[in-house]
Amino acid sequence: MLANHFQNGIETARLVWSRIPNSEESQLLDDAVASLKKSDGGGVESLDYEVVENFAYREEQAQRGKLYVSYLLVVKWFFALLIGICTGLAAVFINIAVENFAGWKFSVTFDIIQKSYVAGFVVYVLINLVLVYSSVYIITQFAPAAAGSGIPEIKGYLNGVDIHGILLFRTLIGKIFGSIGSVGGGLALGKEGPLVHTGACIASLLGQVTCGCAAGVAAAFRAPVGGVLFALEEVTSWWRSQLMWRVFFTSAVVAVVVRAAMGWCKSGKCGHFGSGGFIIWDISDGQEDYSFAELLPMAIIGVIGGLLGALFNQLTLYITTWRRNYLHKKGNRVKIIEACLLSFLTSAISFGLPLLRKCTPCPDSDLASGIECPRPPGMYGNYVNIDAIVILSIFQFFCSKDKEYNDLATIFFNTQDDAIRNLFSAKTINEYSSQSLLTFLVMFYALAVITFGTAVPAGQFVPGIMIGSTYGRLVGMFVVKYYRKLNIEEGTYALLGAASFLGGSMRMTVSLCVIMVEISNNLKFLPLIMLVLLISKAVGDAFNEGIYEEQAQLRGIPLLESKPKYEMRNMTAKEACGSGRVISFPRVVKVSDVVSILRSNKHNGFPVIDHTRSGEPLVIGLVLRSHLLVILQSKVDFQHTPLPSDPRGAGRSIRHDSGEFAKPVSSKGICIDDIHLSSDDLEMYIDLAPFLNPSPYIVPEDMSLTKVYNLFRQLGLRHLFVVPRPSRVLGLITRKDLLIEDKENVNTLELQSTSVRIRHQNKRLTRNIDVERPLLNGLLQNQTPD
Amino acid sequence: MLANHFQNGIETARLVWSRIPNSEESQLLDDAVASLKKSDGGGVESLDYEVVENFAYREEQAQRGKLYVSYLLVVKWFFALLIGICTGLAAVFINIAVENFAGWKFSVTFDIIQKSYVAGFVVYVLINLVLVYSSVYIITQFAPAAAGSGIPEIKGYLNGVDIHGILLFRTLIGKIFGSIGSVGGGLALGKEGPLVHTGACIASLLGQVTCGCAAGVAAAFRAPVGGVLFALEEVTSWWRSQLMWRVFFTSAVVAVVVRAAMGWCKSGKCGHFGSGGFIIWDISDGQEDYSFAELLPMAIIGVIGGLLGALFNQLTLYITTWRRNYLHKKGNRVKIIEACLLSFLTSAISFGLPLLRKCTPCPDSDLASGIECPRPPGMYGNYVNIDAIVILSIFQFFCSKDKEYNDLATIFFNTQDDAIRNLFSAKTINEYSSQSLLTFLVMFYALAVITFGTAVPAGQFVPGIMIGSTYGRLVGMFVVKYYRKLNIEEGTYALLGAASFLGGSMRMTVSLCVIMVEISNNLKFLPLIMLVLLISKAVGDAFNEGIYEEQAQLRGIPLLESKPKYEMRNMTAKEACGSGRVISFPRVVKVSDVVSILRSNKHNGFPVIDHTRSGEPLVIGLVLRSHLLVILQSKVDFQHTPLPSDPRGAGRSIRHDSGEFAKPVSSKGICIDDIHLSSDDLEMYIDLAPFLNPSPYIVPEDMSLTKVYNLFRQLGLRHLFVVPRPSRVLGLITRKDLLIEDKENVNTLELQSTSVRIRHQNKRLTRNIDVERPLLNGLLQNQTPD
Repeated sequence: MLANHFQNGIETARLVWSRIPNSEESQLLDDAVASLKKSDGGGVESLDYEVVENFAYREEQAQRGKLYVSYLLVVKWFFALLIGICTGLAAVFINIAVENFAGWKFSVTFDIIQKSYVAGFVVYVLINLVLVYSSVYIITQFAPAAAGSGIPEIKGYLNGVDIHGILLFRTLIGKIFGSIGSVGGGLALGKEGPLVHTGACIASLLGQVTCGCAAGVAAAFRAPVGGVLFALEEVTSWWRSQLMWRVFFTSAVVAVVVRAAMGWCKSGKCGHFGSGGFIIWDISDGQEDYSFAELLPMAIIGVIGGLLGALFNQLTLYITTWRRNYLHKKGNRVKIIEACLLSFLTSAISFGLPLLRKCTPCPDSDLASGIECPRPPGMYGNYVNIDAIVILSIFQFFCSKDKEYNDLATIFFNTQDDAIRNLFSAKTINEYSSQSLLTFLVMFYALAVITFGTAVPAGQFVPGIMIGSTYGRLVGMFVVKYYRKLNIEEGTYALLGAASFLGGSMRMTVSLCVIMVEISNNLKFLPLIMLVLLISKAVGDAFNEGIYEEQAQLRGIPLLESKPKYEMRNMTAKEACGSGRVISFPRVVKVSDVVSILRSNKHNGFPVIDHTRSGEPLVIGLVLRSHLLVILQSKVDFQHTPLPSDPRGAGRSIRHDSGEFAKPVSSKGICIDDIHLSSDDLEMYIDLAPFLNPSPYIVPEDMSLTKVYNLFRQLGLRHLFVVPRPSRVLGLITRKDLLIEDKENVNTLELQSTSVRIRHQNKRLTRNIDVERPLLNGLLQNQTPD
Repeated sequence: MLANHFQNGIETARLVWSRIPNSEESQLLDDAVASLKKSDGGGVESLDYEVVENFAYREEQAQRGKLYVSYLLVVKWFFALLIGICTGLAAVFINIAVENFAGWKFSVTFDIIQKSYVAGFVVYVLINLVLVYSSVYIITQFAPAAAGSGIPEIKGYLNGVDIHGILLFRTLIGKIFGSIGSVGGGLALGKEGPLVHTGACIASLLGQVTCGCAAGVAAAFRAPVGGVLFALEEVTSWWRSQLMWRVFFTSAVVAVVVRAAMGWCKSGKCGHFGSGGFIIWDISDGQEDYSFAELLPMAIIGVIGGLLGALFNQLTLYITTWRRNYLHKKGNRVKIIEACLLSFLTSAISFGLPLLRKCTPCPDSDLASGIECPRPPGMYGNYVNIDAIVILSIFQFFCSKDKEYNDLATIFFNTQDDAIRNLFSAKTINEYSSQSLLTFLVMFYALAVITFGTAVPAGQFVPGIMIGSTYGRLVGMFVVKYYRKLNIEEGTYALLGAASFLGGSMRMTVSLCVIMVEISNNLKFLPLIMLVLLISKAVGDAFNEGIYEEQAQLRGIPLLESKPKYEMRNMTAKEACGSGRVISFPRVVKVSDVVSILRSNKHNGFPVIDHTRSGEPLVIGLVLRSHLLVILQSKVDFQHTPLPSDPRGAGRSIRHDSGEFAKPVSSKGICIDDIHLSSDDLEMYIDLAPFLNPSPYIVPEDMSLTKVYNLFRQLGLRHLFVVPRPSRVLGLITRKDLLIEDKENVNTLELQSTSVRIRHQNKRLTRNIDVERPLLNGLLQNQTPD
């Protein structure tokens, strides 16, 4: 029953969204619709009000239309709620699965290792291998688009670039199960990026990708505000405040869902997954205050973060390029072997390296100073089901005696979450030797670099935090040593280090800052995190671009940066178009001409040119390749005469189902070579008037490209006509002209529901007639010089 | 020396910005410059790269230009630093001053009251009266633009609407000292709004208003991230990520400065201003957890917040309208009398009402439960210099015995900051009787409503928090009573109440949420705050608009909402222009014609029309009224012939100082009636070509107004030409065309500093020649049909 209702809701929404490209109110049909429909969640959001209108008007029932608008609004918010719930549940599921696999792995390994190191090692390697193999198998065989973090692709998608398959349901499934395998298998990667992709996939089923992105971050870091800001700062190129509000709502829902699930897990129903709180790595008991002398080492952390982050971007860029060009071309088998080798290498290092370290005696349990032996993960609540004795000795197991621990094992032979918890931990001065940290930093950095780009779902957040907090803690140790102040916490420096590395690699500022605060639950260090981020981003920017931009570039996703290029200032719109002749269609065009034109190039949009009665040419709109292909395929619009179709005819609305023109989410769509036309068909004609977007945005030919760029990006366009300078100005629009309310009479406003509605209805009727008549006839008549 | 350098920096920046409207690279001269220059801080930010270019190119030294770009970049960041430091210091100054006045007032009053209640009352009233009088005197006599919160005006300014005087230096001074008087005088208003205005004023001196806004919020609430988000969500209509980064930096600087100043005050050097921490109202020791059953009362708080907030907006709207139309028209004396009456009323209520309440016995000092007698403000560190005995008895003074306290006095007879601290306080169940809270709520709500709109600097944040936390605590008390759970804290409900009222009145979401978290230092309630905000905003939106929008509307500031109006879908661009004929200029125009046209209407921009050689009309650009006025005033561009001016002539750059065309910040500019021209002058001609913006944005006449609206708003325009449908398409610009980098050869890219630069230089030279020749001659020649 509920499921049925839900299904209906989706269908309604799909139907409505799909109606965009062929609605009859062509007047209302923006280029923005054409340009954003397929590939810009933000854009779709922004336009659904209009869609609603179109749909409602089509029904010719103003009253019902009003109700319908409310209904759709409710549906939209309901979908936002659903996205929040589903993303939250997906995140909880992934978390529980990963923690259970990892917990089981460590407990089994430990049981065996009591008898034999070698057998333990073999079991450990095998479990990891199986997990990673399952992940890479899913990806290669089932959902290739689910490899990697997915953030560059989502970013591309919300920038208006559609990459094949990234938002399919199978990608969602692949991403969820793949990331369980890859993260559970102990590779040097995280589950946060994949969760963002997962959120986006879930949301794309309901048509609101931006919400899904934010939900993913909110779920991954349990950072609702961070999620909103991430979607705003990093992902979309386009934003508006209504969207912000809905995204905010989705994030809040995620937070509540995750919190509820964790409360439920507290009672021990989630296996090895224990009572993790809502804050992931709580350092609220950290350093109380900081002195100005500490700003210097903190700035140094920022610089290191910028340098290591930029280096990371550069190295991964080289390795990914090499992978794409040589390794991955050889097929799936190579990808699988590669992942398995990496798994073996990672297992060997994480198991073997701690063995080489000598053990550290636990400091005397001193309650006053709070310093004690590093607590194994169970104490933090993640492995509640492991036998207590096992827990207590898991880090001592590498050591011969009790009251000793292996500091390298606490970060290497551990899940990443717990390792970070240990690195961030306060009141644990001298827990780590600088030698261990340095070893770990080098090895893990190398592992993270070579793991990046493997055919498994892989996020860079958690590895980044690992790397950053390691050198952060190293700096902290030096500060403790040389400043000799008791109120300095190494954990705080680890946090700043983590922020700096992420800042140096991802180059986000506000969202990262909020995420760091939300995951660490310490507002006192906000200014410090801000400063460290600013420094690391500035340093990183001096070398290369952010990791997402670099990866997007590598994958051929044309992201438009927020800033126009330097060169654009000296170019005009005309120069940017290139020298090629513009291929345009006449209003009524022969089918064979359409086919040959579509075959001859790969353009996605074509101007349509008609002539006024006096013979002057006139641009009447833009037609999209995808729409032409649909028309060619269905053939119902073919006509025998080269004259405009009957203005009073039944029209396209009967001949075409409203969903036909909507490109299926993230598929390749129709190809011209798939369409087979008889020679009779080829001799027929099509009147393009009903299918075109009558007013795409235009710019004069000699406008500065910088201005064109801003126009293009701010409005999220896909096509822009470059036209000659106009010969007349029919009017000037200023800010006051757009304040409709103020211009109208107060009485009219109060009677809006009656008189204004009637006026609009009349207007609409006139317009509808215009539209049903051969489009633009009205215009053509008026076109005589006045 | 430093001051000198600083002065130079400002001069340079001013010079550069001022060069925008009359730079020779008219090609690069966007409509956006013309439209944003005067009045959009964000806009100016966005364009200064271009400006830099213009300036640098003008110098004809590519190399020096490059250096100059870096220099300007450094200057810009240095300015952001300065804005941060100055706003932080201004905030600290206001805080210290207010706390000292208030502290001194309470201590003096208390000293006298020991002897006589009446004398104490008289002294209390008189001190408040003097403070409020000083404030209203400053405002009425010296800086009328400093009245109110200033946020609607700043919002208008950053939306492209310049209100007279809002960013003058005298407004800054008036705002700082006025708000000390009004807040210190105990009126029901806050200092936070004025601080945002103060930040904007400081920033406008350095040309970066958006940064100033964020800095103001960051300083007012010690909430750096909240400041960034406030600037982003609430204030600007226009944004880009580079700006975000700088705003972020400024906020971080403010945080550090405020923190440093507070650290300094801890040592007791700031008089009554004590050791306030960086977090204003710390509730981090509040409720640990919440049950799902609590979601219902929390939702009720949201609904109450929405209702009371919307009611507040409506009431203040009525009262402000009445004030504007009747009261304030009668001159400054009425304003002064009004403010003094309000001060008396407020003093009488805050002194008198607690007397009517009977005293509450202090609960037995029970360390385990943490419940004790409400501590007077000194204990929180704000009145360190008051005698210890005074401190301990300040709330008992209304009561006859020790060990009793007056709960109404703790919130009424107190500074608002401390009252909020008491309302938010945890572990103080049953501190307040519901009767006291209800009395306070009604009285304070009424006071806040009637105080709003008085001629003093007045913020709505703190009164809003007071009102909200009062009813929040009331709801909390009922929850405690009926749910009978020990882990419920009334203080938490007070926080949610505060959030809900602000949400219901101001209708912000993300920024308010972050601000609430930052001022209360409790991340655990983030999801709750989010949900409460969502509910209260939704409820409030059902009734009216946010308080800033309403006030802006009342003051005639044409803010463009983020969503186009419903009616726009049925309108075309042409319809929006109205039926009036477009007034245009020919390229060379007689002075008398200019004067008569400027006199005949109030338009701010005019199209300029020329003719091609074949006699076809051609729109060559947009000229601004303000520029025409400058030309008329200076007279140096007058010429005797009606022919285009000598193309190779010395040009305007020699005749005009570069700063001349820049409208002084926030002044009325020149008026046509101020310009006196002889009859000889009137017979002369002006060639407008060098003064126009050659490529304003254009839209075809039948474009949907929704699309036009989005274009207008997203690009922050002020003028838009509505033109006939184009007759040809010269080219199509797609996303790939704008990825310049990918199109160019890699070699070229690497040699950018040499070859590309040379190419650009050549281009530039060509263009410059074009420009120096009668503008568009080149275009006119090409205009023959091809």
